[in-house]
Amino acid sequence: MMDAIERFVREDLIPREQEVEDTDRVPDEIIEAMKAQGFFGLSIAPEYGGSGLSAEQQARFQMAISLSSPAFRYVYSSNLGIGSRAISLDGTPEQKAEFLPRLASGELIGAFALTEPSAGSDAGSLKTRADRDGDHYVLNGTKRFITNAPRADVFTVMARTDQSKPGASGVSAFIVDRNTPGLTVGKPEKKMGHRGSQIADVIFENVRVPAERLIGGEEGRGFRTAMKTLDHGRINIAAMGVGMAQRLLDEAVAYAGERQQFGKAIIDFQLIQGMLADSETEIQAARAMTLAAARQLDLTRTAVKEAAAAKYFASEMLCRVADRVVQVFGGAGYVADYPIERMYRDARLLRLYEGTSQILQIVIARAIGSERGIRVA
Amino acid sequence: MMDAIERFVREDLIPREQEVEDTDRVPDEIIEAMKAQGFFGLSIAPEYGGSGLSAEQQARFQMAISLSSPAFRYVYSSNLGIGSRAISLDGTPEQKAEFLPRLASGELIGAFALTEPSAGSDAGSLKTRADRDGDHYVLNGTKRFITNAPRADVFTVMARTDQSKPGASGVSAFIVDRNTPGLTVGKPEKKMGHRGSQIADVIFENVRVPAERLIGGEEGRGFRTAMKTLDHGRINIAAMGVGMAQRLLDEAVAYAGERQQFGKAIIDFQLIQGMLADSETEIQAARAMTLAAARQLDLTRTAVKEAAAAKYFASEMLCRVADRVVQVFGGAGYVADYPIERMYRDARLLRLYEGTSQILQIVIARAIGSERGIRVA
Amino acid sequence: MMDAIERFVREDLIPREQEVEDTDRVPDEIIEAMKAQGFFGLSIAPEYGGSGLSAEQQARFQMAISLSSPAFRYVYSSNLGIGSRAISLDGTPEQKAEFLPRLASGELIGAFALTEPSAGSDAGSLKTRADRDGDHYVLNGTKRFITNAPRADVFTVMARTDQSKPGASGVSAFIVDRNTPGLTVGKPEKKMGHRGSQIADVIFENVRVPAERLIGGEEGRGFRTAMKTLDHGRINIAAMGVGMAQRLLDEAVAYAGERQQFGKAIIDFQLIQGMLADSETEIQAARAMTLAAARQLDLTRTAVKEAAAAKYFASEMLCRVADRVVQVFGGAGYVADYPIERMYRDARLLRLYEGTSQILQIVIARAIGSERGIRVA
Amino acid sequence: MMDAIERFVREDLIPREQEVEDTDRVPDEIIEAMKAQGFFGLSIAPEYGGSGLSAEQQARFQMAISLSSPAFRYVYSSNLGIGSRAISLDGTPEQKAEFLPRLASGELIGAFALTEPSAGSDAGSLKTRADRDGDHYVLNGTKRFITNAPRADVFTVMARTDQSKPGASGVSAFIVDRNTPGLTVGKPEKKMGHRGSQIADVIFENVRVPAERLIGGEEGRGFRTAMKTLDHGRINIAAMGVGMAQRLLDEAVAYAGERQQFGKAIIDFQLIQGMLADSETEIQAARAMTLAAARQLDLTRTAVKEAAAAKYFASEMLCRVADRVVQVFGGAGYVADYPIERMYRDARLLRLYEGTSQILQIVIARAIGSERGIRVA
Repeated sequence: MMDAIERFVREDLIPREQEVEDTDRVPDEIIEAMKAQGFFGLSIAPEYGGSGLSAEQQARFQMAISLSSPAFRYVYSSNLGIGSRAISLDGTPEQKAEFLPRLASGELIGAFALTEPSAGSDAGSLKTRADRDGDHYVLNGTKRFITNAPRADVFTVMARTDQSKPGASGVSAFIVDRNTPGLTVGKPEKKMGHRGSQIADVIFENVRVPAERLIGGEEGRGFRTAMKTLDHGRINIAAMGVGMAQRLLDEAVAYAGERQQFGKAIIDFQLIQGMLADSETEIQAARAMTLAAARQLDLTRTAVKEAAAAKYFASEMLCRVADRVVQVFGGAGYVADYPIERMYRDARLLRLYEGTSQILQIVIARAIGSERGIRVA
Repeated sequence: MMDAIERFVREDLIPREQEVEDTDRVPDEIIEAMKAQGFFGLSIAPEYGGSGLSAEQQARFQMAISLSSPAFRYVYSSNLGIGSRAISLDGTPEQKAEFLPRLASGELIGAFALTEPSAGSDAGSLKTRADRDGDHYVLNGTKRFITNAPRADVFTVMARTDQSKPGASGVSAFIVDRNTPGLTVGKPEKKMGHRGSQIADVIFENVRVPAERLIGGEEGRGFRTAMKTLDHGRINIAAMGVGMAQRLLDEAVAYAGERQQFGKAIIDFQLIQGMLADSETEIQAARAMTLAAARQLDLTRTAVKEAAAAKYFASEMLCRVADRVVQVFGGAGYVADYPIERMYRDARLLRLYEGTSQILQIVIARAIGSERGIRVA
Repeated sequence: MMDAIERFVREDLIPREQEVEDTDRVPDEIIEAMKAQGFFGLSIAPEYGGSGLSAEQQARFQMAISLSSPAFRYVYSSNLGIGSRAISLDGTPEQKAEFLPRLASGELIGAFALTEPSAGSDAGSLKTRADRDGDHYVLNGTKRFITNAPRADVFTVMARTDQSKPGASGVSAFIVDRNTPGLTVGKPEKKMGHRGSQIADVIFENVRVPAERLIGGEEGRGFRTAMKTLDHGRINIAAMGVGMAQRLLDEAVAYAGERQQFGKAIIDFQLIQGMLADSETEIQAARAMTLAAARQLDLTRTAVKEAAAAKYFASEMLCRVADRVVQVFGGAGYVADYPIERMYRDARLLRLYEGTSQILQIVIARAIGSERGIRVA
Repeated sequence: MMDAIERFVREDLIPREQEVEDTDRVPDEIIEAMKAQGFFGLSIAPEYGGSGLSAEQQARFQMAISLSSPAFRYVYSSNLGIGSRAISLDGTPEQKAEFLPRLASGELIGAFALTEPSAGSDAGSLKTRADRDGDHYVLNGTKRFITNAPRADVFTVMARTDQSKPGASGVSAFIVDRNTPGLTVGKPEKKMGHRGSQIADVIFENVRVPAERLIGGEEGRGFRTAMKTLDHGRINIAAMGVGMAQRLLDEAVAYAGERQQFGKAIIDFQLIQGMLADSETEIQAARAMTLAAARQLDLTRTAVKEAAAAKYFASEMLCRVADRVVQVFGGAGYVADYPIERMYRDARLLRLYEGTSQILQIVIARAIGSERGIRVA
């Protein structure tokens, strides 16, 4: 399978990166090709039409696909990610049967709505509320920076069902159709990079959601469910970072082997060699630790410390690599004639989402304390 | 004077930064205001209508103005910079009388044309040629990444007059009117940042330039002249980096003091404090060393090592500060609702021009070798 | 004066560094020479026999002297530092008259006793107590890591006079003769570096100190006094870091110019050049910001942010420089045939005392918050 | 087996680390215990009495043992390392039969003599010569920094047999008895750390070595043989770095969980958490990439790029971790009451031997060029 993916990346995705950048959207035929190849169901169990890849297999897939623009990945990743995983892990049998096959085939495009204007890293302070009203819940609130919102058919929405409980324990997860009255999607945000992958606000004004769309059929489990999917999500970001960094290095080595200055190829200068070698070294490190984290997750069902560390390291590594590659290209790394300036902008996001680097540092510190019996504040 | 500049920055420039970003041009009334305030003649001697600021005064001016978008600076900086300095330092009395007053007033907008597609860091390998033909020189070649080219009235052009001499010694500098037949300016480059400041190719096809436009009236002095202006140029970039970093830090402290997460302002978290403190510390260092380099240049007319070090440190520092400030803002640092993502893109250029960081490392190493009598290859 | 100091460093101090390392003590004749040259009174006012140098002059002095082993500096620095400054700033006229001249001449060697086993960075939690008993105070407690303790004649001791006040406000400063019964000095600590400068515990068991030895004659002012001396102390450490780093760089450039590998001097390799250039650059930055902080302290009597930043930057810079210089020397940087391994060990201390780097980050963050009206926790 | 090793480390090695530091030697009973447990033959084939561990198994062994002082490792590592490997790979059947069993049992202690005063990184410029004289070779020259020399019974010596060939191709490897007349071992070097593991010069003055001690029985193969053993050596250093870093982190977490400042354990401060989390993260990365390199070496017999990258990353990582841990300990990290200052000194060596970090950067750059068909100078 990996061979087919690599060919798809090389022949279909990379040649259209610039078009995605210029139009801010992934062409429909690419999306259809992804559906045909089963990209939307990679993590969904075979009984629901997915391919049920292991975490390690998913990481390898992600590394391969991320040799091309990250925009391509967002097309299907919400379908694999926390939204469908929440249903896979905690959904009622009816919810699974209704949604997973259509998510796996790409018939439905999903999006995950957690972040709010005042709740970024601090997910426990969510303000969006879901009030029970007969056999419905009424949702009110605003979600921010929701990836894929402009294109999504269905949202997994985290909302507070119990206003008396502060923090995470009063939060539940809902499946919400995009067409529900009262739900509006804002204008796509202008952002530094990741063009082709749109993010927008999602606003809920008295949005009535049938009670059977409460994931798992029980209130207050939203966060626990979300937490269970976090390790997968972080390992996938880490793998994405590895792929993106590898592409950047490939571009840099090729350029440095051709570009002449002072009578020789610039790869012959030690200061250039140093930047290439550091990048190669850190990519190897990130790849190995990401695969190790994935193997542990496959083995033990939990890898909080390892997934956080892999995501933290790989995303920081990616930005260092991107930075060095701009430097290898010199002025050519700053202009849009070359893909480097785009990749540099794309790279920067990975240290900000699914836990900023600072949040991850704290997650990791707590884990290493707690495995030694030390409670860390 | 510094008070007036700070007010101009605060009241006239900062409020229009976004407009400059969106339109990719500086409004004409800003340019007129800059002319009125004498910005175009800061470094030009009073006898030619400038204010003849010392290097230290120029650095302080640059730090103040760079609290706003760097686009504003490029409007007048070519008039102060290497182009007019070449005339100031080496021009014939007639050249000075003809050009300096009109550059000082802003009547003429200048641009400096050195870089070529295959001659970036390696300026000695210039291919643009200037062949003597009667009382003219005929210029042929292509210049790349020429700041201000789309707006410039007059170019200072480095071209090879002696084809038999490789390297720097056969190069001369010319003053070329934009309207000379055969001179065309390419389309502005799309680039990562610095929108509002346009760069473009300048192509010379049998451009006939009168011999009296050879700067200094003597062939082969082009590089020596350029070298004399380098220290000034690097100190000014360093000062620009200090100003830009200070602005970023100001934004970050304000945001961190307001943004609440986990029940408190995020400035109360040590990991945020660490990023702010590191930025403050490095800005202080860069400011102090830039001013010290400027004072030495004022005192001794040369500061190769100090100017290179200041530019190297300040530009690297700026990028570290910009990177931390994005991290302080989190997701808000990645979207265009806030100015941070723009500043982050703007910052990246400073490590690439007027000597990449790698070139500067070599310049500095040679200087510290040579001041101890050690010849460094 | 600076010429004389440079000669003293070159001719008298550097040649005896290894002896100081091997014997763990500074030779008496060096101490006598320092007395003769007035080193013990640099910061003490001329009316008390000192030379009353400005902060900037002291910083320049410190940079010059620190081209040699830091051990030499500790001989006299306690006499200049917080101990004598506390008397200069806050002492009664009688205390000044009694102690300052003898400290200035070096007749008395001083030491400053603040740190305790459980009060390192958190000076407010001091446990050493001073209980009033008639016209005496009775001191009990243990002080740790007291520089110069084995050699000191007189200690400035911080002790809690008011047990009801937690934190800093109940602390007072005393001048205590070494020979007072009940005062014992522990065995010198074995430590990573700074051999020749000894540190030890100082234990107080019912040590009776006459009430007129309470500095300033008033209880509870100890910390305020100490705080006033902190800026000076930090600027001096910063200056020391600059001197030590310059020495390391000097050694590295000389070695790299001589050492041959692969048929050329290793200074001809770009990766070596990069390490030298980075070191030169950062030394320039640290020097300039340290002198700027000192000038501000001279001008405004306070420079909390600047002094903390200078100490933080210069000490971190020193360790980076030391690390690079070991790398330039290769295996020779690890063996005692060359002074580099000693300097590497010496360097490491500077990030730990007079505020660890982490404490300084918080000090700086608070200062930049507070100057903008933001209270930082 | 790993359980037994961990118990040995915990119960026998760690408790005697300080003794090794103080006496500069590993106690004989530890050496005997190592012999009994087969440590000397880990990499030697079972047919010669070793246990023939795979590269991955050796790396895991090394990680476990390196939770204690590196001094313990050097006792047996020369027997596993390049010396015995040269015989294993290239020795004649007679050489294997004569030496491998006695190296595997620890009856003979080996040492590898390559480095010379003027040939550090540049091994090709060796000056030690071996001139054929009848059925002997006569060796002359000086080897420097030879680990284990004071204790070794037998040396694997690289010497130039063909003076007409410069560089690596004229070099051969010999097995030389310590007791051969003319061979003297210098005084152990004083060095920054790694006490208990002694290094010294080995001087050859007309040392006559029987021709049958030429490894492989053919001249000029010395370097090729050495190169084949390099990957193993580098992976082992990387694994050692992982173990040492893990120990440092274990110490730091324990200390940070206990040490109180400002009313709480210092592990509750984010700046401490950040340092612990960064260390944990980088250790994970280094461990994963080292094991991946070892698996590749087991699989394909060559892993130049991966072994160099693992050694480079792990050794740099170790020094960063050691540096942070000193900072976590504060003043306690600088005094010999705690093991941290020793570990900090020990750590520094790993970036200097078996290829400095700079040499490894170049090795890696060449490998990534060459795998893309780009020749790198």
